[in-house]
Amino acid sequence: MNYRLLSRTLGIICILFAITMLFSLPWAHPWLGWRRHLEPPLESPEFEWRGFVGLLLSSLISAVIGGILLWAGWRSRGQQLFRKEAMATVGLSWLLATVLGALPYLLSGTQVGPQQTISIADALFEAQSGFSTTGATVLTDLEDPELVPHCILFWRSSTHFLGGLGIVVLLVAILGQGAGGKAMMRAEITGPTKDSQFSRMQKTAGVFALIYVVLTLVLSLIFWLCGMSLFDALCHAFGTLATGGFSTYNASLGHFDSPLIEYITVLFMVLAGTNFGLLLFVSLGQYERLFKDPEWRVYIAIMTIVSVAIIFFGMANGDFENLNSALRNSLFQVVSIMTTTGFGTDDYDVWNNFGRGVLILLMFVGGCAGSTGGGMKVIRHVLLAKILKLELELSYHPKVVRPLRIGNRTINDHDLRKHILVYFGLVAAVFACSWLVLITIEPDRQWTSGATVTSGDLLDHKLLDCASAVAATLHNIGPGYGVVGPTANYQGFSATSKLLFVFLMVLGRLEMFSILVLFLPAFWRKM
Amino acid sequence: MNYRLLSRTLGIICILFAITMLFSLPWAHPWLGWRRHLEPPLESPEFEWRGFVGLLLSSLISAVIGGILLWAGWRSRGQQLFRKEAMATVGLSWLLATVLGALPYLLSGTQVGPQQTISIADALFEAQSGFSTTGATVLTDLEDPELVPHCILFWRSSTHFLGGLGIVVLLVAILGQGAGGKAMMRAEITGPTKDSQFSRMQKTAGVFALIYVVLTLVLSLIFWLCGMSLFDALCHAFGTLATGGFSTYNASLGHFDSPLIEYITVLFMVLAGTNFGLLLFVSLGQYERLFKDPEWRVYIAIMTIVSVAIIFFGMANGDFENLNSALRNSLFQVVSIMTTTGFGTDDYDVWNNFGRGVLILLMFVGGCAGSTGGGMKVIRHVLLAKILKLELELSYHPKVVRPLRIGNRTINDHDLRKHILVYFGLVAAVFACSWLVLITIEPDRQWTSGATVTSGDLLDHKLLDCASAVAATLHNIGPGYGVVGPTANYQGFSATSKLLFVFLMVLGRLEMFSILVLFLPAFWRKM
Repeated sequence: MNYRLLSRTLGIICILFAITMLFSLPWAHPWLGWRRHLEPPLESPEFEWRGFVGLLLSSLISAVIGGILLWAGWRSRGQQLFRKEAMATVGLSWLLATVLGALPYLLSGTQVGPQQTISIADALFEAQSGFSTTGATVLTDLEDPELVPHCILFWRSSTHFLGGLGIVVLLVAILGQGAGGKAMMRAEITGPTKDSQFSRMQKTAGVFALIYVVLTLVLSLIFWLCGMSLFDALCHAFGTLATGGFSTYNASLGHFDSPLIEYITVLFMVLAGTNFGLLLFVSLGQYERLFKDPEWRVYIAIMTIVSVAIIFFGMANGDFENLNSALRNSLFQVVSIMTTTGFGTDDYDVWNNFGRGVLILLMFVGGCAGSTGGGMKVIRHVLLAKILKLELELSYHPKVVRPLRIGNRTINDHDLRKHILVYFGLVAAVFACSWLVLITIEPDRQWTSGATVTSGDLLDHKLLDCASAVAATLHNIGPGYGVVGPTANYQGFSATSKLLFVFLMVLGRLEMFSILVLFLPAFWRKM
Repeated sequence: MNYRLLSRTLGIICILFAITMLFSLPWAHPWLGWRRHLEPPLESPEFEWRGFVGLLLSSLISAVIGGILLWAGWRSRGQQLFRKEAMATVGLSWLLATVLGALPYLLSGTQVGPQQTISIADALFEAQSGFSTTGATVLTDLEDPELVPHCILFWRSSTHFLGGLGIVVLLVAILGQGAGGKAMMRAEITGPTKDSQFSRMQKTAGVFALIYVVLTLVLSLIFWLCGMSLFDALCHAFGTLATGGFSTYNASLGHFDSPLIEYITVLFMVLAGTNFGLLLFVSLGQYERLFKDPEWRVYIAIMTIVSVAIIFFGMANGDFENLNSALRNSLFQVVSIMTTTGFGTDDYDVWNNFGRGVLILLMFVGGCAGSTGGGMKVIRHVLLAKILKLELELSYHPKVVRPLRIGNRTINDHDLRKHILVYFGLVAAVFACSWLVLITIEPDRQWTSGATVTSGDLLDHKLLDCASAVAATLHNIGPGYGVVGPTANYQGFSATSKLLFVFLMVLGRLEMFSILVLFLPAFWRKM
């Protein structure tokens, strides 16, 4: 095991976290304006001592741990980095990030609801939901600063920003481990990569990070010009570009009730779900690359067709007031779910069953490879469709070997075919097993009593609700159906179930392999 | 195209059907005792003229069509049979069987309910459900001979018998097309075959057919000795050995309320879901082959573990009266669903959510390869698990090539790995697409009004109900959840949806490939 790299990586993460936590500190003071649109408005805003101390302590703890790790890393011997070690490093980094990210919630004594202090499972859930850019929450009331201070809300959205393009991509850009970095990049960057115009991974990671930061700042500025406070603008920009979905209001982005803000968010969600390699070409003026890209065309086509279909069936069923509101709500929800962002402006759970059903399927699609979007990625579905068609042809013409083509290019890599199929198999297996575990360990009380439901009949919804919760966390979306619907949250689940979701979120974000291998006994042999 | 073989095959099917229909004729007469357990008992049983004439006409039509086809086949030229043509022949045979099988229902004017004559879509559904050994029904009342005559009920169960081991397997045994037969066998026999002790396909098919017929007769005799009438004994034996599930009572096998009959049925369902190759060895006295077979061990293990788990959670939730009834009902329902039979003795839809959820997953497992059971087959799941584990290992040790082992044998066939993964991909794709189509085309009226439901809230169940209907037809099980639950039937669906189910049933029974290829334009080129 390359302990030198491991210690250095973990150490740098700690220091990065310590610094980022400091950025959340100023928001403890009412100077910065906070949220203008709060209902009821804050009468006498006060300095948030609890949040301030919690964040400061967390930052100190992170810095101390980081210092120790860097010192240990400096002392230990360095070796060549193997693929296996890179995978273990990524997994351990993510674990450390989750624990550190949970500290501010715990140390500030954040309240998940009135008279209900956050538990360890809650804090881990919220931190992992942030880093994995899922956006699922266990906080039942975001709008009362007595429960959740502004500085903690800012840290919450910052975890999206950090998780955004992947902590490890940033680390590759900063650390630059050569071949090791390359191996890590493979474990981290999402989906089957396509363009390698920039041969050096380090440079690519840096450029991607730059695009990401610039887009976030641009969107923050636009939001601010649209009338949001600086606090809201930054938090929602973090949530959008990371395809996260944490908001600062209980009604999510629907709070602003502004078509302008919603259409702008749609545009930036689409960008965030686009391959960053393509965004780079676009920023260099090569717009035609966008429209020539087979994945991006399918990505846009799916969003367009599904939105139109939802408008059609929604109007027929009276789900929308008029065509204008239908376009606005359908497009927003479709883009939000497909890019795995999870912002909400309308309760799709009360739409007709076509809309509800098609959104469930969209949860399994996701954004483009090489974007901040989660899910299974559009390209995998495109390839799966092509592979299945080729294999059907092979079944009656066993001797004819036809190549796999995507766009104008022929993919000769036979391992890729298998890899795509294996990925779908893994997702199906993880989904089925997690669903079975969830319905087994989760008590029925959420469905039979409590604030979120009204009738005992809703117990029949447990199967679907749990399936949607598994899909929404595994694919890093956030909202699901029923008790985890767009107007609800994950607070009702038991601590064990919340830890299962934490596991699913990291599993989805790191695309299965890096985490699942840690559970093979053979992986740890001869380390 | 080898028109000679095609005509001969289709011709023989017609003649076989004409003869089988004649076997249903005697049941039009009350002499034979019919059903003893009917409530209310039949006061003055009458000769069923409608059913008799309908069956006789159907038999004549089949015989005439068969004669024409045989005459055409005798005149046309024969060539070598290619894989492609074998697949087309299987597909067309199944289509013809469905149409012929629907004739008796239509010509006898069977009533699906009071004052409601069977429609063409209904008749095709019922026939396909029989041949594909699904056991889903659109008949709302089986117990009134004014609606469904006994001779038609007997024909209905006979379609299970015919479908049982696969019409084409029988045809291989009768026709013996050499290499062509071998190609057809491959398209027809279910799952990845394992033992080829008998080199000649013809002989194997004959022996399998013999085992099947003997087991059916033995079970009929046992049922008869248990107190069933001859009619009930034969019909239920047909339904059991074919893993079909058509009963002659509205309450399915639960009508008899006899633990003895239920445990005997469990035993024979387990046998019907066992690889017939293994049954052959057992009949030759080599019992140890059974317990050494990796697939059979997993098959038994799953049924045992799931039954015990359902007893445990069911007792905890008060689903069962006592441990005795828990064992009886849990075991029966688990074996019935897993072997894809679909007989019912208890309404599992009102069990707790663990029981309901685990049964949904069992629907995707199915029986053993080379049995009459439908579904995805146990061996495919065993292989998938092994393949996924190997591929996870490959992800961190790309250079290590480990063989796929099952039991004590190494499988060097690399195409098999891909084939298994492709099969799962096809099932996932077909399932998702059919579900989307079904929720789109099926009107909401089943869930908002009518006899099967009581409240408008049940509309929220449409997604799950439709998913279970797709799973139950695609995997040839029969009952699902909600509107297609164990106490309900498929009558409420629209004609279009019923035709979709017809398609799914044949797709599942012929294991995807043979039917899906017919939709590729390339398949029909250069025929």
